[in-house]
Amino acid sequence: MSERRLWTGAHLVTFAGDRDWGLVPDGALLTEGEALRWVGPRAALPRALCEGLADEQDLGGALVTPGLIDAHTHLVYGGERSAEFELRLQGASYEEIARAGGGIRSTVAATRQASESALHTLALARAQALMAEGLTTLEIKSGYGLSLDDEAKCLRVARRLGEAGLTVRTTFLGAHAVPPEFDGRQDDYVEAVCQWMPILRDQGLIDAVDAFCERIAFTPAQTRRVFETARGLGLPVKLHAEQLSDQGGAALAAGFGALSCDHLEHLSDDGIRAMADAGTVALLLPGAYYFLRETQLPPIAALRAAGVPIALATDHNPGSAPGLSLLLMLNMACTLFRLTPEEALRGLTVNAARALGLADRGRLVAGQRADFCIWNAAHPRELSYYFGRNPIRGTVMGGRTRA
Amino acid sequence: MSERRLWTGAHLVTFAGDRDWGLVPDGALLTEGEALRWVGPRAALPRALCEGLADEQDLGGALVTPGLIDAHTHLVYGGERSAEFELRLQGASYEEIARAGGGIRSTVAATRQASESALHTLALARAQALMAEGLTTLEIKSGYGLSLDDEAKCLRVARRLGEAGLTVRTTFLGAHAVPPEFDGRQDDYVEAVCQWMPILRDQGLIDAVDAFCERIAFTPAQTRRVFETARGLGLPVKLHAEQLSDQGGAALAAGFGALSCDHLEHLSDDGIRAMADAGTVALLLPGAYYFLRETQLPPIAALRAAGVPIALATDHNPGSAPGLSLLLMLNMACTLFRLTPEEALRGLTVNAARALGLADRGRLVAGQRADFCIWNAAHPRELSYYFGRNPIRGTVMGGRTRA
Ligand SMILES: [Zn+2]
Ligand SMILES: [Zn+2]
Repeated sequence: MSERRLWTGAHLVTFAGDRDWGLVPDGALLTEGEALRWVGPRAALPRALCEGLADEQDLGGALVTPGLIDAHTHLVYGGERSAEFELRLQGASYEEIARAGGGIRSTVAATRQASESALHTLALARAQALMAEGLTTLEIKSGYGLSLDDEAKCLRVARRLGEAGLTVRTTFLGAHAVPPEFDGRQDDYVEAVCQWMPILRDQGLIDAVDAFCERIAFTPAQTRRVFETARGLGLPVKLHAEQLSDQGGAALAAGFGALSCDHLEHLSDDGIRAMADAGTVALLLPGAYYFLRETQLPPIAALRAAGVPIALATDHNPGSAPGLSLLLMLNMACTLFRLTPEEALRGLTVNAARALGLADRGRLVAGQRADFCIWNAAHPRELSYYFGRNPIRGTVMGGRTRA
Repeated sequence: MSERRLWTGAHLVTFAGDRDWGLVPDGALLTEGEALRWVGPRAALPRALCEGLADEQDLGGALVTPGLIDAHTHLVYGGERSAEFELRLQGASYEEIARAGGGIRSTVAATRQASESALHTLALARAQALMAEGLTTLEIKSGYGLSLDDEAKCLRVARRLGEAGLTVRTTFLGAHAVPPEFDGRQDDYVEAVCQWMPILRDQGLIDAVDAFCERIAFTPAQTRRVFETARGLGLPVKLHAEQLSDQGGAALAAGFGALSCDHLEHLSDDGIRAMADAGTVALLLPGAYYFLRETQLPPIAALRAAGVPIALATDHNPGSAPGLSLLLMLNMACTLFRLTPEEALRGLTVNAARALGLADRGRLVAGQRADFCIWNAAHPRELSYYFGRNPIRGTVMGGRTRA
């Protein structure tokens, strides 16, 4: 039998039901191995479970939430783009930036050049920044390699980050941008992506498939081609949809039973209806909205009304969202998107888990994975009210405390 | 003679001149006691200075900047306002929030109720969050006590934060809001503030005097009354000016030789001219702009054209800016206000020092106070490009390394 550990004196945010925080003021959590064996009011904890405990800790009233989940990142890449950031602020045009070697192609070049071990060092530092704020599950997309070998390299780096103790979910985003060697042959590139997919899948490197459906990226028809290939391989899909314009991508993705549609600033009513019918999560990315100074808000009220689950993520990437703070996403979701603090925290726990197709986490209830965060806070709304401040006290992943 | 310490292998951002970063790639800093004795390229370091060093450290190419300065905070207060934040996001009206005990008066009540030691504990935690990102000098305003005793209590707490090793500058902001006991007697309250000023000054609690000149706060005539009293006592002034509307506050303050005018979203051309003539610093507060979802930008281009020095600060306060990250202010100043990374970092160093009337810091040149930050970064623009990430490696205050 696995070791059992007990935490008491916890102010629990369980999200046990669908409607509120599911607060338990004087709560206890009992873990058995990697899972939660019992969660509830301390006074109701069965005596029998408390025999032969490997460990017992009194948290003295600290807040405990489900572990945080970042369900949309581009964490593995070479280089950074601060020079481009500076040039733009100095008034340089896009042409000047491109001439100075900016844009996504500079990241592709740096990623291709970097060794697997160099990429791992960089990505690990980024993951550690997120873990310092309570990250326990992390999605990572490929999409800066854009060749079979380089996509495989990046996905292996992503997988290896799991050694740090957190759960990593990998997403194949070959259809992120067209690499230089396919210039003018976008359809050929999509075919190549579809040919790489089974190879990468067979190497155990793909948990899901994503695409960037946008005027400046791939068409709905090309996206469909990618999704059909994924479906044929039994891989779930998700989509970068309606970020800059309404391409009908959300409805297309929902038709494939997509786990999530992401960004969604220009989502239509049809898209919302299709997502609601398919149970697709709306994954909002306030960091990219902020960094790109967008003004078109995602249709929050309509998503709420349609019952579409809303999740949040950092979208960490070097071009449009070089942020590394999940807590800041809570504040930005409230401040910029007007989510309530409860909706925001659900977006990084329950609904983020759903966006990854992970039914075993996101709530603090018996049977779920024992991933949780301990905070110096009196109420969970404080996590979104403050910004640029990290009140974490500890993180438990799979029943084990991480420093 | 004071001990001398040497740091080598530093990529220095000196801001020695007026125009660029003042980068020194393979630099050295030599401190003597609390001051910088020598700063420059390692190769030019005079041998004689290197004899009998108390310590020598090779930074291996790490970036070194002047210590960060937060020149506008309301750091000392009781309570927090996350309940009000949540209520507003749940759609509550201002009346409902007021009825639920929200608004600045709730902070005044909590501050009055709190003991000096309780306030110190809270403020110290906030200061430590800022120090974790390289803060070395901190301005703190009163303004939540609003009685002689409570203002004195808050200013004593502020002073005492200096024990943590950083430099604290206190600002008397009695004219922040009208306390309940003066309801309907705003002029009487201003007279009371003016009577308290010499008392607090004599207790060594005031380094400068501030007021909140705004439709919802104090009139220009009342602000003038406060400034005249300050001038009579030989105290420098500064002003919360033109945040929500143009009151002509900046020109008024400039007429008193104000150190800084702060916020400035609605600053007029006349105000800019008056500030330029007086050498008054424009202290911009992107955290409040962000949190209040303002849309009127401060007139950055006109401030630049007029040669008004631009500084940045957190404006940390529980109502309109519950943020505790200076690095995030760098990114927000670039992203929201379109400052260049160099302007932004000057705003937290050189120009922030100027906003506090401190000529002895803000640059890395011989004779300045030995306050500096060591960063894991290749270029200073990275400090504003990333957000929600803290690449600090160490902070030196007055020649001493802080953990
Ligand atoms: Zn993305
Ligand atoms: Zn202020």
